[in-house]
Amino acid sequence: MRIVITGAGGFVGRALVERLQANADLVLIDHVLDRASSGEHHIGDLTNPELLSAAFAGGCDALLHLATVPGGAAEANPDAAWRVNVDGTMMLIDHAQRAGSCPRVVFASSIAVFGEAMPSLVDDACPLAPKLVYGAHKAMGELWIDALTRRGDISGLSLRLPGIVARPAAASGMISAFMSDVFHALRAGEHLTVPVSAGATMWLMSVDQVAMNLAHSLTNGAIGAMTLPALQVRFADLVAEIAGQTGHPASLIQHAPQLSVEKAFGMLPELRTPRANEAGFAHDGDTANLVARVLAHLNQEQP
Amino acid sequence: MRIVITGAGGFVGRALVERLQANADLVLIDHVLDRASSGEHHIGDLTNPELLSAAFAGGCDALLHLATVPGGAAEANPDAAWRVNVDGTMMLIDHAQRAGSCPRVVFASSIAVFGEAMPSLVDDACPLAPKLVYGAHKAMGELWIDALTRRGDISGLSLRLPGIVARPAAASGMISAFMSDVFHALRAGEHLTVPVSAGATMWLMSVDQVAMNLAHSLTNGAIGAMTLPALQVRFADLVAEIAGQTGHPASLIQHAPQLSVEKAFGMLPELRTPRANEAGFAHDGDTANLVARVLAHLNQEQP
Repeated sequence: MRIVITGAGGFVGRALVERLQANADLVLIDHVLDRASSGEHHIGDLTNPELLSAAFAGGCDALLHLATVPGGAAEANPDAAWRVNVDGTMMLIDHAQRAGSCPRVVFASSIAVFGEAMPSLVDDACPLAPKLVYGAHKAMGELWIDALTRRGDISGLSLRLPGIVARPAAASGMISAFMSDVFHALRAGEHLTVPVSAGATMWLMSVDQVAMNLAHSLTNGAIGAMTLPALQVRFADLVAEIAGQTGHPASLIQHAPQLSVEKAFGMLPELRTPRANEAGFAHDGDTANLVARVLAHLNQEQP
Repeated sequence: MRIVITGAGGFVGRALVERLQANADLVLIDHVLDRASSGEHHIGDLTNPELLSAAFAGGCDALLHLATVPGGAAEANPDAAWRVNVDGTMMLIDHAQRAGSCPRVVFASSIAVFGEAMPSLVDDACPLAPKLVYGAHKAMGELWIDALTRRGDISGLSLRLPGIVARPAAASGMISAFMSDVFHALRAGEHLTVPVSAGATMWLMSVDQVAMNLAHSLTNGAIGAMTLPALQVRFADLVAEIAGQTGHPASLIQHAPQLSVEKAFGMLPELRTPRANEAGFAHDGDTANLVARVLAHLNQEQP
């Protein structure tokens, strides 16, 4: 199976490549790629037609499209984000379609498609109402993929990812970076002030769990757009669990809530995902397991 | 009030310009424009940055975005259609936003956003499920406009137009051209074979009625995306009414139904549009009035 992966050098991409490389021919696209990753490497911009032609020249059974200009970066430069998030998604799928026969296309969408004004329960019927540029771009990508799937051109699935932890501490253009930084700070025994309250509620998933879900999506045949199951965690409970497992005091974490951040990332309601559950997707089980997986992943990457 | 109109030289555009020109400063954009139309003329491609800069240089209170690559043409060349329908829509709104202060943006969307598999009743809750490339592009435009409206950047309204009659007989790239051609044929006393059955049901609106609705949209404050009310007409009833009003026999019209056309344009279910009705939009009232308006319009344009 020949699988093209965009964003293959990114945080989720690396975990996914590691999981898939033993059993598939991988074609990796990103601005930076780990030399140790097996497969064809295409380094550059995914909107570059020459790069695309080269990457898809050997055929395409599946496209896993993870690359994106994320929330904060898209707000700062909406035009550049449009080029990658909207046009780039169309160009990639167009190439996949020509290189394969009704290829599998899995698109990393985001819970940002729901916007701020979520109802008290989010389920499979929740309407798209993005407010961030990033969320609007993801919703447009979902629509395009649904239409091509309805036409029989691709077998498309958009998976809305919750907050994935723990991303590297370096600036990633994500407004939600605090969800990951709390792991880094407590692991290092350092102070951190976060832009949400102790009572903030978030939807989280470990990077290992999301890589498992993405790998599963290659073969489960689910189509359409669906929200991945996610663990709903209160920020104070997350801090207490990380503190317990790292042996550092929870008091290292201070709060200076910013209303806009709290509204976008810290007031998430109850989530029900019957379609994704039925398709075999899963969350991390409980907060202790989520934290243990995240810390194990961090220890492996940065011993 | 300074109003930028794209597709201003087109069929709907000309009727709208005629209605608005006495009471507003119009800025007209199209590949071809009627010299007699008052206002600034910008002739060329709406994705040309220089044309856009010039058109919006004098400010923008409202943008009426009618230009599009329609159904048949978009199927034939999806990439070119994307450039106009998706990228062009974004570029126009971007310019409007910079040139105005939360400008009014009215986007001519289409009932093609609903796709083929419509439920037995279409109302304001009907999900977007486009199958034509054109319908997918329109749905993506709706989403982008909704997001910008939610952000407070524009006051955006997407109006889903039904079949507008009677478009000029010349090829327009529209698969639904038969709806208009039946007027031309019966008016001229000529034979016509149409790709739908006598029992086909369509949603129709006269060009005068759609121009009234678009003019009304400038000031009614409605936002979001909504389906315009439309007259639901059985094809045989339409033919009988046109035959009666033109004095030519209905038997001039023959049927050679094509399943794909019948499914896309001839099997439209009941339509309810409470949001649009509340916002003051209207259809033509009854088939006799629709036909009378269309024939009067044709007699004025081609006496």
